[in-house]
Amino acid sequence: MELVDAVLGRPLATTEQHGQKIGPFAGVPVLGLDGLASAAYGPEAALAVLIPVGVAGLAYMWPIIGAILLLLAALYFSYRQTIEAYPNGGGSYTVARQNLGTNLGLLAAASLLLDYILNVAVAISAGIAALVSAVPLLYPYMLWLCLGTLLVITLVNLRGIRESSLAFGVPTYLFVLTLLGVVAVGLYRTLVNGGHAAPVVAPPAVPAAVTSASIWLLLRSFASGCTAMTGVEAVSNGVPLFSKPTVQNAQRTLTLIVVILALLLGGVATLSHGYYIAAMDEEKPGYQSVLSQLIAAVAGRGIVYHVTIGSVIAVLMLSANTSFADFPRLCRLLAEDGFLPAAFANLGRRLVYSIGISILAIISALILIGFGGITDRLIPLFAVGAFSAFTLSQAGMVMHWHRSSVRKHRLTKITVNAIGAITTGLALLIIIAAKFIEGAWVTLIIVPGMVAIFKVVGRHYRRMAREVADSEPLKTGKVRPLAVIVPIDGWNKVTERALRFALDISSDITAVHVTSKSDDKRLRKRWCEMVEEPARAAKYEPPRLEIIQSPYRQLFQPILDFVDKIKQEKPGRLIAVVVPEVVQPRWWEYLLHNHRAMGLKAALFLKGDERTVVINTPWYMRDV
Amino acid sequence: MELVDAVLGRPLATTEQHGQKIGPFAGVPVLGLDGLASAAYGPEAALAVLIPVGVAGLAYMWPIIGAILLLLAALYFSYRQTIEAYPNGGGSYTVARQNLGTNLGLLAAASLLLDYILNVAVAISAGIAALVSAVPLLYPYMLWLCLGTLLVITLVNLRGIRESSLAFGVPTYLFVLTLLGVVAVGLYRTLVNGGHAAPVVAPPAVPAAVTSASIWLLLRSFASGCTAMTGVEAVSNGVPLFSKPTVQNAQRTLTLIVVILALLLGGVATLSHGYYIAAMDEEKPGYQSVLSQLIAAVAGRGIVYHVTIGSVIAVLMLSANTSFADFPRLCRLLAEDGFLPAAFANLGRRLVYSIGISILAIISALILIGFGGITDRLIPLFAVGAFSAFTLSQAGMVMHWHRSSVRKHRLTKITVNAIGAITTGLALLIIIAAKFIEGAWVTLIIVPGMVAIFKVVGRHYRRMAREVADSEPLKTGKVRPLAVIVPIDGWNKVTERALRFALDISSDITAVHVTSKSDDKRLRKRWCEMVEEPARAAKYEPPRLEIIQSPYRQLFQPILDFVDKIKQEKPGRLIAVVVPEVVQPRWWEYLLHNHRAMGLKAALFLKGDERTVVINTPWYMRDV
Repeated sequence: MELVDAVLGRPLATTEQHGQKIGPFAGVPVLGLDGLASAAYGPEAALAVLIPVGVAGLAYMWPIIGAILLLLAALYFSYRQTIEAYPNGGGSYTVARQNLGTNLGLLAAASLLLDYILNVAVAISAGIAALVSAVPLLYPYMLWLCLGTLLVITLVNLRGIRESSLAFGVPTYLFVLTLLGVVAVGLYRTLVNGGHAAPVVAPPAVPAAVTSASIWLLLRSFASGCTAMTGVEAVSNGVPLFSKPTVQNAQRTLTLIVVILALLLGGVATLSHGYYIAAMDEEKPGYQSVLSQLIAAVAGRGIVYHVTIGSVIAVLMLSANTSFADFPRLCRLLAEDGFLPAAFANLGRRLVYSIGISILAIISALILIGFGGITDRLIPLFAVGAFSAFTLSQAGMVMHWHRSSVRKHRLTKITVNAIGAITTGLALLIIIAAKFIEGAWVTLIIVPGMVAIFKVVGRHYRRMAREVADSEPLKTGKVRPLAVIVPIDGWNKVTERALRFALDISSDITAVHVTSKSDDKRLRKRWCEMVEEPARAAKYEPPRLEIIQSPYRQLFQPILDFVDKIKQEKPGRLIAVVVPEVVQPRWWEYLLHNHRAMGLKAALFLKGDERTVVINTPWYMRDV
Repeated sequence: MELVDAVLGRPLATTEQHGQKIGPFAGVPVLGLDGLASAAYGPEAALAVLIPVGVAGLAYMWPIIGAILLLLAALYFSYRQTIEAYPNGGGSYTVARQNLGTNLGLLAAASLLLDYILNVAVAISAGIAALVSAVPLLYPYMLWLCLGTLLVITLVNLRGIRESSLAFGVPTYLFVLTLLGVVAVGLYRTLVNGGHAAPVVAPPAVPAAVTSASIWLLLRSFASGCTAMTGVEAVSNGVPLFSKPTVQNAQRTLTLIVVILALLLGGVATLSHGYYIAAMDEEKPGYQSVLSQLIAAVAGRGIVYHVTIGSVIAVLMLSANTSFADFPRLCRLLAEDGFLPAAFANLGRRLVYSIGISILAIISALILIGFGGITDRLIPLFAVGAFSAFTLSQAGMVMHWHRSSVRKHRLTKITVNAIGAITTGLALLIIIAAKFIEGAWVTLIIVPGMVAIFKVVGRHYRRMAREVADSEPLKTGKVRPLAVIVPIDGWNKVTERALRFALDISSDITAVHVTSKSDDKRLRKRWCEMVEEPARAAKYEPPRLEIIQSPYRQLFQPILDFVDKIKQEKPGRLIAVVVPEVVQPRWWEYLLHNHRAMGLKAALFLKGDERTVVINTPWYMRDV
């Protein structure tokens, strides 16, 4: 257990929960990395769609990013309201379920879960791809680097919320400060020079246009840029993580995240136009990301460049962390409502939902392995889940205010959330339309499939709760004499122990011996000497011996048949099957045995009924 | 079960065993394929070593094959005697163990087991390699073809001994007849033409010599040719497979195999010289095996060629079958002596040792997969095991006659086996020396490792038998009142069933509820109403309720601690822990539960002692 303690930290008592709460500055690394990292790839994604229109595309950047910023503003005000209204965690699932019904709630939950899973795989592989393009030497180890990063993030999260905010805080704020600094310097130079500054290191020339811009192209660019907004809902989901005043701290965290994100997005959009920086084709040699060109143009390729790019790479990888904070939390809510196994709601040794963390890590690892560490093809699936959840959550909030009895500012609140719902809904339609063929259709299969599973699981737990529930008191009829059956393989100490226990609880005992021979005279003789005589001498009803021939060398079936026979012969009696078993002192010694006792227990258990009870009398082999 | 019946055949009763016995002609495909297939690769292996000496090498073929034939003759007479002396199966293990002691017996067993395993992998991949070189189209599927062949051979063997002799008899006798025919025609033509006949299709010219022959080269050639003898011991191991008269039938089978093998080896040696056929470098394009050149030289490339080559390929693959007949049989002997788990001695549904067959198939599959279906590198390991076993078995026979009280022909018998022991021992030394660097050293690690495992296993079983053995009669002290502990998770039907059963067997009952809270007032109240009052009303001692706080959210440890506490408080009493458990009607429903009951049973079982008994009261959920 010492190794476990060293890796995961000592167990935390349930009462230590308050010590694990966080404030707004710690909240950004825990819940904001997904959102902030978007600044690194959102503009790039939007610009990549515009490659075919050449330099003209740069002029469209501000309208597109402007639309995205408006959407972000709508989301910001909507989610502020959600946080206030749901101080116990107002994730899309909770809001949609309470206001729009279980089905739409589960739809929001499934969308988000899928989104969280994809985010882990995509974030890590994007970060590693950036790392590998900076250090090409690492190329052959890409998958291993991805899995190693996943392992580190998983372990840090298993150590608890505080640990993850401490571990990930440094790269987060380094990223924010360096990138904001670069953007500020760049903007200053651009403004001073009347809109177009001379770059320190000139970006590659923008390739010539091969087509002119169409509305469809601009919509697709907008849809791609919208990936920059995934992760904004994270804070509303994680409100209970914050220290008091909980709601205010959560709102401050959301404000911090959205303001930084907006500054970065606006800055990158302005500077890409100011320095003539376009996206490059990733598949062609000499590829450089938009951010890399931009930083080089503003700061040259010195120490500032390397520190900034390093922090971008780190944040890309760590943005997987947001999923690790919210996925287990959402699973827990689903488990508490009976749509997932109850284990998802168990607090682990460090007061986090360890099962959810582990499941997320396993699924992400499988995806990374399945795609060999390169997850570009998953990106189109990505924004659909987030925007479905946004829309459902905002629509739910509209219903919430509509039903609410509080009259103050009611219309404003409805309006804010309605604008959020309508804008994100429109964005969702654009995203689905623009990315349907590229893979968004897969989401439309997986998400309903997940909803169906939740419903089947929910039905099972409800049925189980109904059947198990008991409002009747203990039934205390007359004590029923037990009929005891003891399967034995001969006369030895293990058998002796089982028989002695049987004598303790009943006077109606039958030992059963299954053999491929037609009889076993030697055993009968020993039985007579070793069991019947001493039992009679001590005035016990002597245990009977039944020898059953099994011509096809089966073992369990003859015993099960015998139990059935006794059940019919003795209606109304409880049947206890006493299974003798040897406990080995060392694990490998289990490999050397037939596990007959274990198999028999399982067979009796599965094929039994209310009238059978299985008793296991372990016999312990000495450890020498 | 119907699918199983279709694939493996209906179960056979133990009494049907006599119907599974075989005669000498059926014995050849079952036990002789390994030996006979050697005729296809033994001469080739010897010639391959002689490539550097060019045409001169062909002149050495007869001396080398002659030496091998003498060795074969020595082995033949030795094993005839072994069969007679050990009519219940005189494998090297039995003979060496009885006459030379357990250690040398286990050494022989380990050598043979390794040899059998290698034979499966090497035979199948050699056969498939021959098939692929005939039909190059199949090249990409080599591994799958290997695994498919392995699967077919495994299934046929699981269907029983008779089935495998029927299935493999046709290709075996086709191989014998066509190849003997080709050899006979070739010899006739060679004799008629004074030693060198004109080939129908001329073999490729023998490459020029690059060195002259040395003693070392000839010894290496001999060592390689000795692979032709692996499999000769198979019959002595499988004597009980034969119908009556068992010994005579086994000896006839051995005679058949050795005579055919000798004719083929001698014929190939003569003809390779007569037609100037040398081995070719397998890695160079245009490679043809010695047999292929020889058949083409004698019969041209018509229908005879294709039928003969086809049967050679089939026999190469099927020679894996000998391992399937003897490996499980040897494992059974080891299991009966307690050196392997007892399951190896269980007769399966078709009266074969199914576990041994399956284990052999799994290990061989892993080897084939590990080496990608190309096992050339395993060949040097191959003959070491067989010749170790030969030597030990023959030496054991010398001791056997030495100790025997029968005086008749005693000296002759000792002489025959001594010659066998000395010649095979010499051959073993040559093989190890010649192939040490190529890989034979691996054998010298694996085989002693296996012996060590056998001894550890043997010690475990002996210790267990000693500890478990009981020559004392049943102890029948006064009935000790049971102290019953029932871990519960609340008041429901599952708990109710467990408590009712507890009331049936004891009046000292404590229910234990583990919670992370400091108390559970609601449960205490329900307990009072639902359990204590009705129990008192029915004049029972009311079961107590114990609520245990678990600050670190553990479940099992507090219960185990409580059991220990009760044990100390009530010395001399038996403690029965009644574990309530829900049985789900569908398998997937098990995935939805925490398996707390299962885990608790396991923890109680492993951490318990002689004074604890685990009782499982299953509660069956209705299947709706």
